[in-house]
Amino acid sequence: MNIAKIPMKTVGPIKIIGPHIDAEVRVPLATYEAPLWPSVNRGAKVSREAGGICAIIVDERMTRSVVFEALDAKTALRVFESIKSRKDEMDEVVGKTSHFAKLLDVHSQIVGNLLYLRFEFSTGDAAGHNMVTKAADHLMSWMLGQYAELKYISISGNFCADKKVSAVNGILGRGKYVVAEIMVPEKVCQKILKTTPEKIVELNIKKNLLGTTLAGGLRTANAHFANMLAAFYLAVGQDVANIIEGSQGFVHTEVKQNDLYFSVTLPNIIVGAVGAGKTLDFVRDNLKDLGCLQERESGENARRLAVITAATVLCGELSLLAALTNPGELMRGHTILERGKRDR
Amino acid sequence: MNIAKIPMKTVGPIKIIGPHIDAEVRVPLATYEAPLWPSVNRGAKVSREAGGICAIIVDERMTRSVVFEALDAKTALRVFESIKSRKDEMDEVVGKTSHFAKLLDVHSQIVGNLLYLRFEFSTGDAAGHNMVTKAADHLMSWMLGQYAELKYISISGNFCADKKVSAVNGILGRGKYVVAEIMVPEKVCQKILKTTPEKIVELNIKKNLLGTTLAGGLRTANAHFANMLAAFYLAVGQDVANIIEGSQGFVHTEVKQNDLYFSVTLPNIIVGAVGAGKTLDFVRDNLKDLGCLQERESGENARRLAVITAATVLCGELSLLAALTNPGELMRGHTILERGKRDR
Amino acid sequence: MNIAKIPMKTVGPIKIIGPHIDAEVRVPLATYEAPLWPSVNRGAKVSREAGGICAIIVDERMTRSVVFEALDAKTALRVFESIKSRKDEMDEVVGKTSHFAKLLDVHSQIVGNLLYLRFEFSTGDAAGHNMVTKAADHLMSWMLGQYAELKYISISGNFCADKKVSAVNGILGRGKYVVAEIMVPEKVCQKILKTTPEKIVELNIKKNLLGTTLAGGLRTANAHFANMLAAFYLAVGQDVANIIEGSQGFVHTEVKQNDLYFSVTLPNIIVGAVGAGKTLDFVRDNLKDLGCLQERESGENARRLAVITAATVLCGELSLLAALTNPGELMRGHTILERGKRDR
Amino acid sequence: MNIAKIPMKTVGPIKIIGPHIDAEVRVPLATYEAPLWPSVNRGAKVSREAGGICAIIVDERMTRSVVFEALDAKTALRVFESIKSRKDEMDEVVGKTSHFAKLLDVHSQIVGNLLYLRFEFSTGDAAGHNMVTKAADHLMSWMLGQYAELKYISISGNFCADKKVSAVNGILGRGKYVVAEIMVPEKVCQKILKTTPEKIVELNIKKNLLGTTLAGGLRTANAHFANMLAAFYLAVGQDVANIIEGSQGFVHTEVKQNDLYFSVTLPNIIVGAVGAGKTLDFVRDNLKDLGCLQERESGENARRLAVITAATVLCGELSLLAALTNPGELMRGHTILERGKRDR
Repeated sequence: MNIAKIPMKTVGPIKIIGPHIDAEVRVPLATYEAPLWPSVNRGAKVSREAGGICAIIVDERMTRSVVFEALDAKTALRVFESIKSRKDEMDEVVGKTSHFAKLLDVHSQIVGNLLYLRFEFSTGDAAGHNMVTKAADHLMSWMLGQYAELKYISISGNFCADKKVSAVNGILGRGKYVVAEIMVPEKVCQKILKTTPEKIVELNIKKNLLGTTLAGGLRTANAHFANMLAAFYLAVGQDVANIIEGSQGFVHTEVKQNDLYFSVTLPNIIVGAVGAGKTLDFVRDNLKDLGCLQERESGENARRLAVITAATVLCGELSLLAALTNPGELMRGHTILERGKRDR
Repeated sequence: MNIAKIPMKTVGPIKIIGPHIDAEVRVPLATYEAPLWPSVNRGAKVSREAGGICAIIVDERMTRSVVFEALDAKTALRVFESIKSRKDEMDEVVGKTSHFAKLLDVHSQIVGNLLYLRFEFSTGDAAGHNMVTKAADHLMSWMLGQYAELKYISISGNFCADKKVSAVNGILGRGKYVVAEIMVPEKVCQKILKTTPEKIVELNIKKNLLGTTLAGGLRTANAHFANMLAAFYLAVGQDVANIIEGSQGFVHTEVKQNDLYFSVTLPNIIVGAVGAGKTLDFVRDNLKDLGCLQERESGENARRLAVITAATVLCGELSLLAALTNPGELMRGHTILERGKRDR
Repeated sequence: MNIAKIPMKTVGPIKIIGPHIDAEVRVPLATYEAPLWPSVNRGAKVSREAGGICAIIVDERMTRSVVFEALDAKTALRVFESIKSRKDEMDEVVGKTSHFAKLLDVHSQIVGNLLYLRFEFSTGDAAGHNMVTKAADHLMSWMLGQYAELKYISISGNFCADKKVSAVNGILGRGKYVVAEIMVPEKVCQKILKTTPEKIVELNIKKNLLGTTLAGGLRTANAHFANMLAAFYLAVGQDVANIIEGSQGFVHTEVKQNDLYFSVTLPNIIVGAVGAGKTLDFVRDNLKDLGCLQERESGENARRLAVITAATVLCGELSLLAALTNPGELMRGHTILERGKRDR
Repeated sequence: MNIAKIPMKTVGPIKIIGPHIDAEVRVPLATYEAPLWPSVNRGAKVSREAGGICAIIVDERMTRSVVFEALDAKTALRVFESIKSRKDEMDEVVGKTSHFAKLLDVHSQIVGNLLYLRFEFSTGDAAGHNMVTKAADHLMSWMLGQYAELKYISISGNFCADKKVSAVNGILGRGKYVVAEIMVPEKVCQKILKTTPEKIVELNIKKNLLGTTLAGGLRTANAHFANMLAAFYLAVGQDVANIIEGSQGFVHTEVKQNDLYFSVTLPNIIVGAVGAGKTLDFVRDNLKDLGCLQERESGENARRLAVITAATVLCGELSLLAALTNPGELMRGHTILERGKRDR
């Protein structure tokens, strides 16, 4: 076994407020892109001077969609209506596969004679990829036993949707739905970000909202959520391919009494405190430092991790947007850092 | 500086044929997800038994979009028409910023009085993120000097679009547009993949095409391109956040005289053989082993890397789809591997 | 008041089977595009020779989304959680606005401090545009009275989404979700459609599924649902702008024992038997001829209309796809018809 | 032949300024939705009091995509590169099919061994649906003769994309790309629209931009472009199903020195002054009244029509957005109009 050695630095601390965390946390970021660290660091400084980033969780669930073929559409519909009335039995099937997985809901799409079912679960402190696959696998077997009119097509029907661009994840939910927001006083904007609330708001409209719309974006309006997600996911042992749905989030800003209201909304943060990757030493160290390996209510470690994720994204996004409002600043930043790196 | 130590294994060799590479290559993959290695390995075995994966590059370019505000739409249009006639001057501006960047094309969107310009460049052996930002920065300064009626809005207008879900990248191009394809004899399908050509084709239609459409996917039809992209990008020093556009690709399959025609199309592979990340020791080793650090025509190392990327994606995609055609196989694979990992 | 006189012809009869209709119906289509009539007519002939189109309704609801601003995200979430527990009170508010509107569900999106609520209603025999706006208007007033922390932003927040391209309508539902399907014997394919089941299936994959994906389509996979929807909506007094969500539907086909399984799935058919447009004489005549002005359970006239819509779409879609499998046939058809028109 | 008699009223005049039209025009709208007339009328009044709507055309082209199958991807690419070098021969093929069609450009997508070609033409005063189908038909025959390695798949590959939701039409162009804009003085806002520039701007951000993004919209940000497009297309003999791509447009607004800058951008207005529907008496009368049947440079009648379309959309959009800023106004407007209609 070889090792890919990705440069990692800790930035911050980021000041975070809310039901799941109320602390200043130093955040590890693993990346090949050196400019990311000072960028997030600048946002972290704003978070401290501005009184903290408030972050809440709106929803959480993990999903797996299966697909069956029925004789015809009528049969597909009848089966869907039938299983909705058999929630207790399905709960029992799921209960045998895991102590943590709980079936929350089932959504469907019927296309011709095909029945797509999207099983939605809570998964405790795990991101839950395998937990929901296992549960869906057993649910599928159970259904094939109960409904002879169904034919197996696939344990994953892409209506889940894992690590793929989609609209369904944001609308029906997948992972943690987190909103992080901050009020940045005008003076802090000027001192640390070298810009004004008005300029940030204008840029968000013309770049993140309108520019993304022109690009044919889908349920996304941000500058570079993906950068922070990738670097943080790597540092804390998450499946980095989940930045795809994670990156589909929104920046909403407003000038309020001359100050800047700045928020990031990430409907699909997929993180866990246990599972693949979390047993590596450096990952455990990082999770421990973040307070995400505590003995407590199942799920709360993962929630804390999700909230830190969103706050980190806010810091990096705010900092880049501020830089972009000043002609030439982005390029100067990159040039200095890249040169510096070469000199080292 | 800390280090994130990501487990990395070399799989293959994958047999690849085509204008940019004709060899069997062993491919490094860095990931927390252990099942990925045997999955790609199985595909690699198919590549060897089936005579090789043929991979070609359809297009290559790197982009940066800028956004200006004009007095009104009429002015925005006039400026766009003017700069199209001044390609020589723009080439000169670009030439001063880099030996490698060459301006290929400029596309625009005018929305009200806003002018979005998407500059498209060739960037030699670099992925080109910074190269195009620098070139766009200078082009923007030059334009602001030439057209007093323009106001700077942003060096990045999200019509680029970097590390964000979009349709523009696939339609106008960003990165390398690679198609990789293979003919898998029926017997190889049965022996190595434990399935039939017919089942793979059926699954691709019902999952990748129809299922993705139901999920509200955008210019994407695949099962898990993202997994292979992430693991390979990490192993060879690429910016892993570019898996977002990279993941928007297509599987097209067909039964041809009882055999399986299987192809992956990735319009947005963003890779380079030089630049950030490429100076790390393990990355250099990996690039060297892949034959991507050779002295030769500028751009050819990056092209080789892109083609290997696509072939690797093909191997992993084919293997997973095959597994999904057999009820229970996916879960069994995960269970064995995860248990194995814990035992180590 | 002037009159736009749109040419209208009755095609069919189309043979339809299912819980909402079991009859042969002649369908009026109003259009400037003369080739549409013979095209749908050919499909209607297939429906009769093949034993009928089976059509079912999977779901029905009409929606209006409102948007509020709260002090912060936390408040927005608290309000959303509060109203979910006050369904009875909301039912009462809705009940005062209409005898027919019933609140089915409420979905939300929270972005920063903004609260988008998507109210979903059943609306009897009406398409329900105004009914749901009125109900939402009263719900909004009631909420502003109950929750002083909310500020009115808009009675329509585009998360509805009316007459606009979206993914939400298909995923959460808007209008009638109808699946229509038919088994076309190989011989009928050859005799009437001059093609084979294999050719139709191949074309559907390469054009409707893959081609639409390339075009950056969104939750849509068909050739020309829009044509049939527009012509039928005009003929029966519907709001033709609702073809936008209506057109986002899917064709799924398969060769089954040498015969053709052909289905159309339309998740967003928005039609009513009462309301604006339905009092015009020619509309009443058409609705009456279709059996959609009967005295019976509220909603059943609209359901019958929706099912006829889907069957009509199936006929036109099948016929065009068949034509496209034969090089030159589409153009010949148009040329003959256009010339014929000029000669008349 | 029966007739669908759609209620039609003329609204305005709308004051329009620009290279293609400089006049006050009365605009016919055919619709079942009575509230549309006073709504557009209010916008028309604003256009006159505010000095006129300025409208320009950024681009124009009509498209048809064909799809071939090649032996493999390499062959598909070779054919594409070959035909790009044979523009003269293709021009000749096209020239034989029409006096008006001129080939402007060819874009492609290669997916596996499939070659999608998007032919783009200018089509004079016609919308050009049939003209481009005929030209594409001949180009396809010519190609099948020149390249024995190609197999016909379809004369339409959905990469066109006609009457279907897509991103390609906005990015590569289809129909007329029109921007219409106006400066509305604060006082006119208050007097006629009963609102303020600030409220309109805020609503546009929270509803049209952010709300549409949440809904999973695609290259669209508006409230109800579709309504005006449908009513105007019907009144002037256009193919109403083309409102689907037409509706994918953007509103951009800004407060400028206390006044309102308001713009609509419609990249896909598909209209013609000749062709199907245009020979009907009422259509000819309407086109004549609008000045779109003049003897002049080919294409200029269609351009005038496109510009009027956009100005009409602006009037209706501005009026509705204004209404939505005032709680209850939308519902009151509908109630009064619907009641009025019933009383007539």
